[in-house]
Formats: sequence, C-alpha cells, structure tokens
Amino acid sequence: MKFEQGVPVQWVAEFTGAKLVGNTTQMATGINEIHKVTNGDISFVDFEKYYNACLNSAATIIIINKEVECPEGKTLLVTADPFSAYVKLVKHFRPFEPANKMISDTAVIGEGTHLQPGVFVGNNVRIGSNCLIHPNVTIYDHTVIGDNVIIHAGTVLGADAFYFKRRKDREMQYDKMESCGRVIIEDNVEIGAGCTIDKGVSGDTIIGAGSKLDNHIHVGHGAVIGKNCLFAAQVGIGGKAIIEDEVILWGQVGVSKDLVVGKGAVVMAQSGVPASIEGGRSYFGSPVGEARPKMKELAWIKRIPELWEKVYGNKDI
Amino acid sequence: MKFEQGVPVQWVAEFTGAKLVGNTTQMATGINEIHKVTNGDISFVDFEKYYNACLNSAATIIIINKEVECPEGKTLLVTADPFSAYVKLVKHFRPFEPANKMISDTAVIGEGTHLQPGVFVGNNVRIGSNCLIHPNVTIYDHTVIGDNVIIHAGTVLGADAFYFKRRKDREMQYDKMESCGRVIIEDNVEIGAGCTIDKGVSGDTIIGAGSKLDNHIHVGHGAVIGKNCLFAAQVGIGGKAIIEDEVILWGQVGVSKDLVVGKGAVVMAQSGVPASIEGGRSYFGSPVGEARPKMKELAWIKRIPELWEKVYGNKDI
Amino acid sequence: MKFEQGVPVQWVAEFTGAKLVGNTTQMATGINEIHKVTNGDISFVDFEKYYNACLNSAATIIIINKEVECPEGKTLLVTADPFSAYVKLVKHFRPFEPANKMISDTAVIGEGTHLQPGVFVGNNVRIGSNCLIHPNVTIYDHTVIGDNVIIHAGTVLGADAFYFKRRKDREMQYDKMESCGRVIIEDNVEIGAGCTIDKGVSGDTIIGAGSKLDNHIHVGHGAVIGKNCLFAAQVGIGGKAIIEDEVILWGQVGVSKDLVVGKGAVVMAQSGVPASIEGGRSYFGSPVGEARPKMKELAWIKRIPELWEKVYGNKDI
Repeated sequence: MKFEQGVPVQWVAEFTGAKLVGNTTQMATGINEIHKVTNGDISFVDFEKYYNACLNSAATIIIINKEVECPEGKTLLVTADPFSAYVKLVKHFRPFEPANKMISDTAVIGEGTHLQPGVFVGNNVRIGSNCLIHPNVTIYDHTVIGDNVIIHAGTVLGADAFYFKRRKDREMQYDKMESCGRVIIEDNVEIGAGCTIDKGVSGDTIIGAGSKLDNHIHVGHGAVIGKNCLFAAQVGIGGKAIIEDEVILWGQVGVSKDLVVGKGAVVMAQSGVPASIEGGRSYFGSPVGEARPKMKELAWIKRIPELWEKVYGNKDI
Repeated sequence: MKFEQGVPVQWVAEFTGAKLVGNTTQMATGINEIHKVTNGDISFVDFEKYYNACLNSAATIIIINKEVECPEGKTLLVTADPFSAYVKLVKHFRPFEPANKMISDTAVIGEGTHLQPGVFVGNNVRIGSNCLIHPNVTIYDHTVIGDNVIIHAGTVLGADAFYFKRRKDREMQYDKMESCGRVIIEDNVEIGAGCTIDKGVSGDTIIGAGSKLDNHIHVGHGAVIGKNCLFAAQVGIGGKAIIEDEVILWGQVGVSKDLVVGKGAVVMAQSGVPASIEGGRSYFGSPVGEARPKMKELAWIKRIPELWEKVYGNKDI
Repeated sequence: MKFEQGVPVQWVAEFTGAKLVGNTTQMATGINEIHKVTNGDISFVDFEKYYNACLNSAATIIIINKEVECPEGKTLLVTADPFSAYVKLVKHFRPFEPANKMISDTAVIGEGTHLQPGVFVGNNVRIGSNCLIHPNVTIYDHTVIGDNVIIHAGTVLGADAFYFKRRKDREMQYDKMESCGRVIIEDNVEIGAGCTIDKGVSGDTIIGAGSKLDNHIHVGHGAVIGKNCLFAAQVGIGGKAIIEDEVILWGQVGVSKDLVVGKGAVVMAQSGVPASIEGGRSYFGSPVGEARPKMKELAWIKRIPELWEKVYGNKDI
C-alpha cells in the first residue's frame, strides 16, 4: 500500500515506539511485505534468517527486532515486536470503516453496470462499466473491478488475508496480520457463485483479464492470476501463488502458496500442486507429477501382485 | 428451451445472418444443445467431426458452419460462427431481466412456504408449498422448486452454466455460452448451506425427489440427480452428469461431466469419478476403482520395500 | 438440549403415543442423542445392537422399539418408531420460529460489536463484545458467539445437521432428524468467508477460543474444535469429530465423522482422515498415514518399473 503523502520516519518511530537508526529524516511512501516492497516503503522482519533479505530489499525503512548495521541511506526502526508495530501502522493508515448501508456513497459504479438486490459494495470500491453483479455478492472496501465483469451470487471479494503470527507462549496463540491490500478484477472476467477472493496483505490479489472462474473457488491473499485462465469448481489457490496466463485447473484442484504455475499448464481434477510447475504441460496427482507418467504409475501399482507372485510364488494379502 | 410459439426459420436466418438451406418455411419450436434436442428444435454444430451426430439428431433446424447436404425435411442455417448465432438467439428469447426488489412480482410461491429474510427470488420462479428457504439464499430466474423443500442459508440456485468457447486467436479467448435452461428441485429435497446448483445450458438441472445435499455442494449445468440420493459436504458434480437414484457420495467426492453414476452406487470420501460407473457397488480412489481392490492396492504399495529387499537384498531409499 | 423446566414422563408418553415402562413418575430434564446424554435426559434407540449402550448410558428415559427389561430407576417409552417420537419431541421443544426481520428482537449483541449490512441474526442469538460480522453472514437461532470474534462475509452459522434416517421401504427414503443443538463460537475466533458451521443434533458444535478458520470451511453437526486450531481453506470436518487444541489442517483436508484428531496434529493439504489419529505428528495422504513414511511410499511407487525390469528383464506397460 502506498500512502497518500509521505510520512516522516520520525513520526513512525514515535507512533510505534521504535528506536530510530540510520537516516532519521526521510519520508516513508508506503508499507509493504518484503515480496511487494518498493523504494520508499516500510517493511518489517522479525526472524534473523530473513534479516539480510529484508535489509537488502527495496525497502527503505525496516522495522526490525535487533539493532544491526543500517545499510547506507536506509532507516531502521528497532523494536521488540516488529509484527505488532507493522500491524499498528496498517490499522492506522487503513482503518476498518463500518458501513451503514448496502452500497457505500464512496463507491464508483460505471455506466451500464447492474447490481442485483442484496449486493454489498464497500467504501472506495470502483466497478467499471457493463458489469453484472448477481444477488447477495459482498464486495469489501477498496476492491477494483474492470469492465464487462460478471460476478455470480454469494461470492465474496476482498475478505481479509488468512495470515497470522503464532505466539506459542500465549493463551491466544495467533496474532492477526491486518491486510491493506486489495482485490483487483480485470476486464471480461466471470466469477461463479459462492467464490471467495481474499485481499492481499499489502499488495493486490489480481484476477487477470478474460479469466473465467466456476463456483466455490477460493483465491488466497495476494495471489496473481493471469489472463484467460479457466478454473473449474471448488479449486483452491494459496496466498501469493502466481498463476500465469491461460492456465486450466480442473475441479477441486488445490494449489499451494508462494509458487508459480507456468503459462498454459493444465492440471487435472483433484490434483494438488505443492510447488512451482512449468507451463505448457499437463499434470495429475496429489502431489502432482506430469500427467502421463503419473497415469502410468497407477498402472504399475496394479502390477505389484503379479510381481510379488513371480518373486514369492504367491500373492496373498 | 421451448419457445412460447413457433418461430419461422426465415426470421431466424435473418436475425442471425445465416443462409437458409433445405426447408425454408417451417417453424422452430425451441432451441437446445445436441444432447437435449427434440423434434422442431434449433441446434448448432461447429466442428466437422460432430456434423453427422447433429444432422442425424432430432434437431429440425441446424446452425452449421459449412454448406453440407441437408437431410430430408430439415433446415440448415449456414453461418461462419454457429456458436455466436446460437448465443444471439438465446439472448433474444431468454434475455436477462434485471431485478429491482428481493422477491420478484412474477414469482409464484405456494401455501405454507416461508422465506426467511435476505432471500432473493428472481423472475418467473415457482416455489411449491410448505417449503422453508433460509436467509440469504439466491434463486435465479425461472427456477422451479417443488413441495416440502428446505434450502439452507447462502445457497445459490440457477447461476449460469460454466461453458465457454475458446478462441485462441483472440485477446479475450473465452466466449460465454448463454444459458437458457433452468434448475428444478423436486419435492422433499433438502439442500444444505452454501451450495451452488447451476442452470442447464438449454435443458434443466434437476435434483430428484427426496434427495438430500449437505453443505458446499456444487452441481454443474444440466446435471440430473436421481431420487433419494445423499451427498455429503463439499461434493462437486460436473455438467450434464447423470446420477441415478439412491446414489451416496461421501464428503469432497468429485464427479466429472458427461457420465453416468449407476443406481445405488456408493462413492467413498475424496474419491474422483472420471467416467461412468455401474450402480450397486462401492468405489474409492482418485480416479475411482471398486472399493475393495482399491483398498488392497494401498496394502500392496506398503509391501514394495519388502519385495525390493527380496530381489535386491536391501531396501534403502 | 436441556428443557427450561422438568417434563413429566407421563406427558411424554402421551405426546408420543408410547407405552410407559419402569419409573412412571419422574421428570425429564432434557433430550439428547446417546453420545451427549446426561442424567435426567430422554434419549432414543432403535437398533437392537445399541440397546445395551443406550440402556446403560446416563439417559434416564429411553425411547425404544421393544419392551425390554427396564434398568432400576429408569423409564422406558416403548413405541414402534423411536426416531419419529424423538423428532416429534424436538420439534415441540425447539420449534422453528420464522423471522420477519434481519436482526431478531430476541438477539443480544454486545458492546463494540459491529454488524455490517445484510447480516441475519436469528432468535435468541447471543453475540459478545467487540465482534465484527461482515456482510451477508447468516446466524441461525440460538447461536452463541463470544468476544472479539470476526466472521467474514457469506458465512453461515447454525444450519441444520445433515442427519437422516433411511427407510428403504418408502418412496421418500430419508426422514430428517430435527436438530436442537447450537453453534458456539468462543472468544477470539476468526472465521473466513463462505464457511458453514452446522448446529449439533442435540449437543453443541463448538469452535474453541483463538482458533482461526480460512474460507469455505465446513464443520459438521456436533463437531468440537479445540483452542488455537488453524484450518486452511476448503477443509471439511464431519459430524461429531473432536479436533483437539492446536491442530493444523492445511487446504482441502477432509476429516470424517465420529473420531478424534489429537492435540497439535498437523495434516497436510488434500489429505483425508478416516479414523482417529494421535496428536503431535504430521500426516499426509488419502487415507492419511504419518507424513514421512507416506512420502516414502510415493518414492517406492516410482521404483516399481525398475523392480519389474530386474525380475522380468523388461518394463513395458
């Protein structure tokens, strides 16, 4: 998320109770997780093994739980609990604003777009032209929808990221990461009934132009879906997954978080994708392999009793 | 879909810009996909390998992308893009009619039926007597619900078919097939919370009398579910699947499209049904096999290391 | 369910048309299924193989379909169809009360709790303080929600148990078990969008304090989820399952009914849990095994062709 105007690091230090190290006069231009961070942004790190990645990232201001050497020109905000400091900033700059009507006065809705009854449109939502939003759809604050988009009934766009920090020593072990990202639905997308597309933690969850989603599909926080993808019913996509253009996922496929599914990949029904896979091929299985050898494995399994009998002279089980 | 009254083929040709071949004076009585077509109907075909099936089907009027020999008594409508011509007709005869209230004035609701708050009931919906529709359910136009039906909260009946034609040479590759079919819920059905039952493309999606569906179930366009079926939570059924009477599907089962699950079949949890299976048996696995041999396969897999050791003298992996 | 005041067994016998055997003067204090029953309760049994379990349970009043010897101090209600008698009692003591507005006048909502538009809150619902309920959520009658709870859009709390008695000799084969249990969401729980948590048949479905559920999760009737659990998207939990504290279930995991998942167990994505598993370990597969040996099985399967070749001198398939 970018701030509307620069924020002095001095103020950030006071607001979060952090100690200022390095450049103490610059302005923060936004706040982002490490994988989305750009120049001028605040980011945070609280595990020593990620210190270098964060210090060497594009982030200009780093909230950190140890006073380390500050890279040239950057600012450290040293505090015992960077996660909580980060969450406090997100809540300040993107507070939850309660709604008191179904369609917010701050929503902008394009020409020729029709909203059926029961649709909720949150604050600062933008919907393009010639869209059709079916009944009982929920569109959280800050969602952006392009032109010629169809959203079927009961779908939810922009619910919070499922992202928690575990504190094993506490009675309530999970601290919530507040989300300040958005959902962006590009032009000519159709989303089926009962889908859920979560907002990004700091960046955006994107459904690329021309992609078509069937019913009951879940897309996690910050996932980026390419153009002209086709997802059948009950597919689930983990947070920050990147699905390139023209990918086809058949029914009940699960895709894990933080990976890439290459352009034009086809994943057969009920398969599970635990790590990145190359484009242009077909996949099957949980966990997936390339479809043809994976299918052959099924045939080989059926031959075990014959093999057993050849070796042992019997095939009792 | 049947038209309310016959439509001259001459008008259809002009409306779609098609060339009229064969009988030029007859009346079209409806419009249907090839698997649902009856005498008097318009259908379409755009792949040469399906020409014969379509020309020899019950369809009387065929939209086709090549001028072939016209069967006796039939009419060809020759046009470069039969899919688009068909969609244009569907949109004309079953246009989307925006709603401006939660319960349409054209809906007919039987005696003793109770609609909880937040229920949307579209145009021309018919609901029988003694039904209970829980909050925030969405019932699209033209849906038909029998007597003594219970629908739990958040369920969506009649969203569009997930059916697109791919045009790889275009920037936006997927053309939407407009649906003119309906959802029909027969008597004594109970449908859980958060389910989605899509309308048929030209025919009807049917949930047979006395069938019980748990939560989060997806039933694709034009699927026909028999009587007294029992589907556990998160089951998904593909388009045009036929599930015969008394079938039991346990949780998270996936059934592919265009197949038949025979009467009384039982499919164990998380299994995947990729092709037709016979009735009266139990199935397991993804893809499914009969349950007992499939379970034995799992035991055989565990014996591979022993077999390996017998053959190789070691079992390192 | 406990009655508000004691009910004479004489009245229960007359109301259900049952024959009274044993103690004919005592008061029933509640009505419960066998696994939830406590002293003073009415329960029912209609299969001979469960007679002893029911007669020896804490139940004081037993509806039964055969006149057996009555245990000391208990009461038998003998009737041809105990299931129907039980359902008749449930309907009498917990009748469905139609709503005519989105938020019932009998609901109690704590300080600092915000309900977004489109939320339905049924009769006798209690919601604690500082909760945030997002749009189009449905909360059925009698649900209890603690403090600091977040429920995302479209989620449904308290839909009926998926519990039917099959009568194969009838045209409509499934008789519905009416539910009189509740859903209880403890403090600091967050539930994602599009989830469904069913009420218990006679006891309560519980989501323990501090647990976090992602989107599209189904929790069946009477399941008891511990504290600080983490369930990823599209997980399904069967009825009466017990998930102990700090269990982590990754995406699309299915857990069967009537079992225990031990404290701190971790179940990997798409796995299926058909029976109880011990805590403190990681699991994988459908059906699950411990993760490490299950992963090794996958490697062993890949070695079958090599083994085959060693034994047969070829590996054609």
